[in-house]
Amino acid sequence: MRYEPLTVATVPGYVRGTPLMGAVFAKDEGLVADDLADGNVNLVFRVRSQEEPARSVILKQALPYARAVGTAFPMPLERIDLERRMLTVEARWAGTAVPALYHYDPDMHLMAIEDLTPHLIMREGLVRGIEYPHFAEQIGEFMAATLFHTSDLGVSSAEKKQLVKDFTNPRLTGVTEDLVFTEPFSNHPNNRYNRWNPHLAPIVGSLWADDELAAAVADLKLIFMTHAEALIHGDLHTGSLMVTPDETRVIDPEFGFVGPMAFDLGSLLGNLALAYLAQDGHISDPTRRAAYRRWIAGAMEHLWVVFREEFRGRWNAHGPQWAPRAYQDHYFGRLLREAAGFAGVEMIRRLIGLAHALEVDRIADEAERAVVEGKALTLARRWVVEREHMHEMADLLIGL
Amino acid sequence: MRYEPLTVATVPGYVRGTPLMGAVFAKDEGLVADDLADGNVNLVFRVRSQEEPARSVILKQALPYARAVGTAFPMPLERIDLERRMLTVEARWAGTAVPALYHYDPDMHLMAIEDLTPHLIMREGLVRGIEYPHFAEQIGEFMAATLFHTSDLGVSSAEKKQLVKDFTNPRLTGVTEDLVFTEPFSNHPNNRYNRWNPHLAPIVGSLWADDELAAAVADLKLIFMTHAEALIHGDLHTGSLMVTPDETRVIDPEFGFVGPMAFDLGSLLGNLALAYLAQDGHISDPTRRAAYRRWIAGAMEHLWVVFREEFRGRWNAHGPQWAPRAYQDHYFGRLLREAAGFAGVEMIRRLIGLAHALEVDRIADEAERAVVEGKALTLARRWVVEREHMHEMADLLIGL
Repeated sequence: MRYEPLTVATVPGYVRGTPLMGAVFAKDEGLVADDLADGNVNLVFRVRSQEEPARSVILKQALPYARAVGTAFPMPLERIDLERRMLTVEARWAGTAVPALYHYDPDMHLMAIEDLTPHLIMREGLVRGIEYPHFAEQIGEFMAATLFHTSDLGVSSAEKKQLVKDFTNPRLTGVTEDLVFTEPFSNHPNNRYNRWNPHLAPIVGSLWADDELAAAVADLKLIFMTHAEALIHGDLHTGSLMVTPDETRVIDPEFGFVGPMAFDLGSLLGNLALAYLAQDGHISDPTRRAAYRRWIAGAMEHLWVVFREEFRGRWNAHGPQWAPRAYQDHYFGRLLREAAGFAGVEMIRRLIGLAHALEVDRIADEAERAVVEGKALTLARRWVVEREHMHEMADLLIGL
Repeated sequence: MRYEPLTVATVPGYVRGTPLMGAVFAKDEGLVADDLADGNVNLVFRVRSQEEPARSVILKQALPYARAVGTAFPMPLERIDLERRMLTVEARWAGTAVPALYHYDPDMHLMAIEDLTPHLIMREGLVRGIEYPHFAEQIGEFMAATLFHTSDLGVSSAEKKQLVKDFTNPRLTGVTEDLVFTEPFSNHPNNRYNRWNPHLAPIVGSLWADDELAAAVADLKLIFMTHAEALIHGDLHTGSLMVTPDETRVIDPEFGFVGPMAFDLGSLLGNLALAYLAQDGHISDPTRRAAYRRWIAGAMEHLWVVFREEFRGRWNAHGPQWAPRAYQDHYFGRLLREAAGFAGVEMIRRLIGLAHALEVDRIADEAERAVVEGKALTLARRWVVEREHMHEMADLLIGL
């Protein structure tokens, strides 16, 4: 079949010609499609059985450009193949933490995956003030499992080098290099704050003139570009998590490549810190707000400890002879410091760069929002510039 | 042509069927071949014109195993192709610092390169006490040029990722991981000192029991395996340099891959330190010995400064906007510390591991040699374990 972008109208006909009929759907049942269109870069449809709406799948199809930006932002169609292979590796080590893969069509640059329901995008759940009591443990385990077993501590030297080759992802890692590490740190036309929140001008101006920040961000960007440590998700923010109070599922690994483990940790921590700070605009009752913040800060601390101890356990069980236990504390200390730096960069880019953080955007009052944004930028700068002095998660959480 | 290992007898006939006739040699002239066999892993022949012996080339042909070890040590024939491509990239940035490439035969896994004459392998020159007044400047420039222009500071993000893929070199980097970073640090059967210099037993035993050293070496090994910084030579010791008092030429880049820049710096510094210490066994006149050592220590200092300032100059001229000058001192400080660590590992592996250092081996008296080896191991341990405290080359050279 020749590549052709699907529409709500053409999806049912396409699906009827695939092995999904029989595997997921009954042989001849009627299907309906909805356009979810909630990603930034792909076509996303939900396909449901007309007879039994609980039978459904998600279709994700690549466009030759980023959907939310347009044809001026070209993206390779092959990213769906890379995402499919990422899901396969992640599933090998983290089982059902990622959606099941039902179907892949290399000609249509399309895959069909599990429809996660009743899961909510975690970023949305955090705006609604929902606590996820198992989240920290589940995401800590996910990171420990997927990162350890794709690192030089968990696979052979030759397998690791093959992973680096197989998951070379120049276009999408290039997007991260530009949108996360470069554009937010100068007055770039892609930045969100070219449509200014006028209250924020002084602090953003001072960040753009900050030599110490520029040097620390250059260091983190080079770590991102050069440290081929493990097969990372590459975009592990709260918008890439679908959650219920019982379950944490990780989606959208199309930015995956062999990179620094701490980038996944940092993306997550930075977005949790934004959700923490944004509660000023979402929970008006001070007692309830304080309690919810305690839960978020506790989750940040706990996911780090779970990650570290699960990773340590796998290291003790499967690690190579040449990487002795005496080296572990040094190793985890370095990861925490790098994670602090990446978390700070992630916060800054979500406030100044192209991609938004809805928990902040939904604070309608500009002045009130600027207070949150100012606090977040101050915290973020501290995490980036002072990361070498951070030894425990408590050192990051000071002031939260 | 089918692959077949050449011999002194078959080389002239092979060369007569190549474009080397006419390009290097006269059309119908007679040729003679010598077996140089001075590498560890390949067949190496010199082919000369019978009429004009100054007309000559070097033939280097891969065997499916390491020549000096035997068929039990398999090596991919494709390493000659990688070496050829390394020479091409090095020549692009460092011109005649590498031998000219005259001919490549992919079926025979063979290349013909410039015969460097009257150059001497530098390791041999250092045993003879020869000073090379231009060496530090020439090798510093070579490293700055080849490393800068294959790093993320010197090429685009996409070109860099292509370099990583094109120069993936799992078998030969695997050899380094084993022979340099692993085997010397435990009682491994490949180690040289399984045939013991009995005088050295106590210090080697204490190194094998040294948890702090093991942790620092694990850290350096992971840096070697994960930091894809620039296209490095990968084996830049004094046996990979052919020198005259006027010229420094760099040979044998078959271990090349995109790795940590400091590994090249460290390999060189470690072997220069060995040459420095070994002079106790080679120059008996104390005044002359002290003068030669001053030259070696000065060259170590000078090659670092030349490398750093040449690299800085290229950074200032060609570096990306996002890597500001305010970041340079941090960057070079990190490189120096990593170089100290790699230098220490290199010294230890040349004393305990499989590959020898002839400047040490040629000290015939076992007790006298053990004194040199003991000093070298003590210095090496300091460079590895205390590298985080080193800020200037002078911090490394204390005690030399």
